[in-house]
Amino acid sequence: MCADTLGGVTSIYLDRLDRVRTAMTEQGVDALLLSVGHDLPYLTGYQAMPLERLTLLVVPRDGDATMLIPRLEAPRVDAQPGVFELQPWNETDDPTELAASLIPGASKIAVGDQMWARFLVELLPHLPGAEYRRAVDVVGPLRMVKDQAEIDALAAAGAAVDRIAADLQSGAIPLVGRTEADVSAELSARIIAEGHQKVNFAIVAAGENAASPHHHAGSRVIREREIVLCDFGGTMNGYCSDITRCVFTGDVAADAPDIAEAYAVLHEAQSAAVAAATVGTPCQDIDRAARQVIADAGYGEYFVHRTGHGIGLEEHEDPYIVEGNATPLAAGHAFSVEPGIYVPDRWGMRLEDIVVATDDGPRPTNTVDHGLHDVVA
Amino acid sequence: MCADTLGGVTSIYLDRLDRVRTAMTEQGVDALLLSVGHDLPYLTGYQAMPLERLTLLVVPRDGDATMLIPRLEAPRVDAQPGVFELQPWNETDDPTELAASLIPGASKIAVGDQMWARFLVELLPHLPGAEYRRAVDVVGPLRMVKDQAEIDALAAAGAAVDRIAADLQSGAIPLVGRTEADVSAELSARIIAEGHQKVNFAIVAAGENAASPHHHAGSRVIREREIVLCDFGGTMNGYCSDITRCVFTGDVAADAPDIAEAYAVLHEAQSAAVAAATVGTPCQDIDRAARQVIADAGYGEYFVHRTGHGIGLEEHEDPYIVEGNATPLAAGHAFSVEPGIYVPDRWGMRLEDIVVATDDGPRPTNTVDHGLHDVVA
Repeated sequence: MCADTLGGVTSIYLDRLDRVRTAMTEQGVDALLLSVGHDLPYLTGYQAMPLERLTLLVVPRDGDATMLIPRLEAPRVDAQPGVFELQPWNETDDPTELAASLIPGASKIAVGDQMWARFLVELLPHLPGAEYRRAVDVVGPLRMVKDQAEIDALAAAGAAVDRIAADLQSGAIPLVGRTEADVSAELSARIIAEGHQKVNFAIVAAGENAASPHHHAGSRVIREREIVLCDFGGTMNGYCSDITRCVFTGDVAADAPDIAEAYAVLHEAQSAAVAAATVGTPCQDIDRAARQVIADAGYGEYFVHRTGHGIGLEEHEDPYIVEGNATPLAAGHAFSVEPGIYVPDRWGMRLEDIVVATDDGPRPTNTVDHGLHDVVA
Repeated sequence: MCADTLGGVTSIYLDRLDRVRTAMTEQGVDALLLSVGHDLPYLTGYQAMPLERLTLLVVPRDGDATMLIPRLEAPRVDAQPGVFELQPWNETDDPTELAASLIPGASKIAVGDQMWARFLVELLPHLPGAEYRRAVDVVGPLRMVKDQAEIDALAAAGAAVDRIAADLQSGAIPLVGRTEADVSAELSARIIAEGHQKVNFAIVAAGENAASPHHHAGSRVIREREIVLCDFGGTMNGYCSDITRCVFTGDVAADAPDIAEAYAVLHEAQSAAVAAATVGTPCQDIDRAARQVIADAGYGEYFVHRTGHGIGLEEHEDPYIVEGNATPLAAGHAFSVEPGIYVPDRWGMRLEDIVVATDDGPRPTNTVDHGLHDVVA
């Protein structure tokens, strides 16, 4: 990486860190502690290994930031002059004691969501009387608003999974006679082949299994004349994709009119929720828009989850599209819109796009057809 | 699964839970909280999804265990009658408040290592005055001692990666001219092909990159006449493999006598540490056995990490083979023995087997040759 580029990257991190410090000041947070999770790479470019040796970025509100790192992992970290100092610790050191020593007297401490609880348990006695809160309070509002490069990355990841969904709808991915797990493995391979570095999930749920929203693809063989729900995504150049499409292995109008009828409702609900996703609209109103359509059609009890979640570096992040979240949408917010209808022991369905709120209205990053396609063996 | 088998599985979990409650009583722990991580599947057979909706097994010392589960994930859980009650929570509930309500008055609470810190942060205000400790204190001693089925699973996973290492040593896996990342991808594919369900890591580090113990395989092309360190493993039927072998892309005796000389020391150190791993020996003495050989040969400053880690359901778990850990080895303890020598900017090397302590002496699960093989393009 040439010096200019490096300078550019470092200045992004410096800018983000400045804005985090402003939020810390506004909220009276004395120190920010980040480990495993996505706040750390957002602020430094470095992702902690999810292992038992603690990597921890310690950001005092008014002092220099320090990254504590296991000595054997220090060579993994690219220096970011001015962003943080690197402090390797040895195998016989106690890194939580080191962390506490960097923030003497801190009384309000914000901790990254996905840091292992063991490290917080070990930190507690080193900082008696301190009060803890989630780092998302100071980092989340920044991460929620995507800049143009981030939106482009989400769009590219979305286009990649759209191509896979199109193959699913055209029948280019065979289904009947294969196990869910086998189709899931093919979706995973295609996610990588389409340019993602990592597969995050590839749910394949056939027939009655589709009534389990987070079904684990298993040995169930896909049959003719049933609905198959596919919800898949990965991480491409740091940003996540996430899409759900359902197909029917037969002639849905003739074979399963109940499914066709419910799908028409689901499609209408999803469209209504996307249309409602305008700047200034409270997140919960998008949830309500989808829920209203489904409830009016008599399927209310079968829509058992929120309408969506934010997406970016992380597959699920703020803002959540859920009752109780009154946060108004801002330009640059990116999130899923994914209502579902799940009838236990019979079938389930979900329809999901990633949408970016813009001043020109909601912009879906997934544009592959939204219908329930009939596919044949 | 037939009723008999299910009964058998449930009784394993009931037995483990009984032993955990005994440990809780001995240590005065009022409640155990388990989420993401491996203690939960060890006690219930269920693995929590690593997402923002909390799955939490709440085990009061004297009451029934309850698994709090997001409603949409409830269909994923196999009932284990007598082991736990399933309590689904809704999208607008606060699951940490529910958890606190299940353990009123609990003052000493053990928390699973890998639970997301956000949930502990959210729990703290619901249980003012409570004291927290790591769940590993009550579950770890059980998990450390593997039963025969667990040892067999570790041995099968070890044999699988041995076959890959043998192909590496024979030159059946080409190296020269390929990138580290490309070879890493091939190792990953072979880990799956050999029967693992999941790849945990596939470090490939060439030449000077091998001096970084946790190097991230990248675009560096492997050249002739250099050392290539490969450290790889996965999860097979729930249990982990982990092996390190190095090869040399040339004639090491002629091309790099310094590497040949250091490797002989490393080999001797690793053998000495394995031989030291007898029942009753303190863990730190195994570390000392390896370190002594390396220090005596003048490479002490280049051995920058502990000698090993326990392994089982988790890639790294108790017992750690590190200075300061006086825990005596017991029959059924399983752990890595992996000394290394790392000369910054020049080269690095590590030699690793998984070993099980038995009453008949140390039993390595990896038996593939321990030499530094010359491989040619």
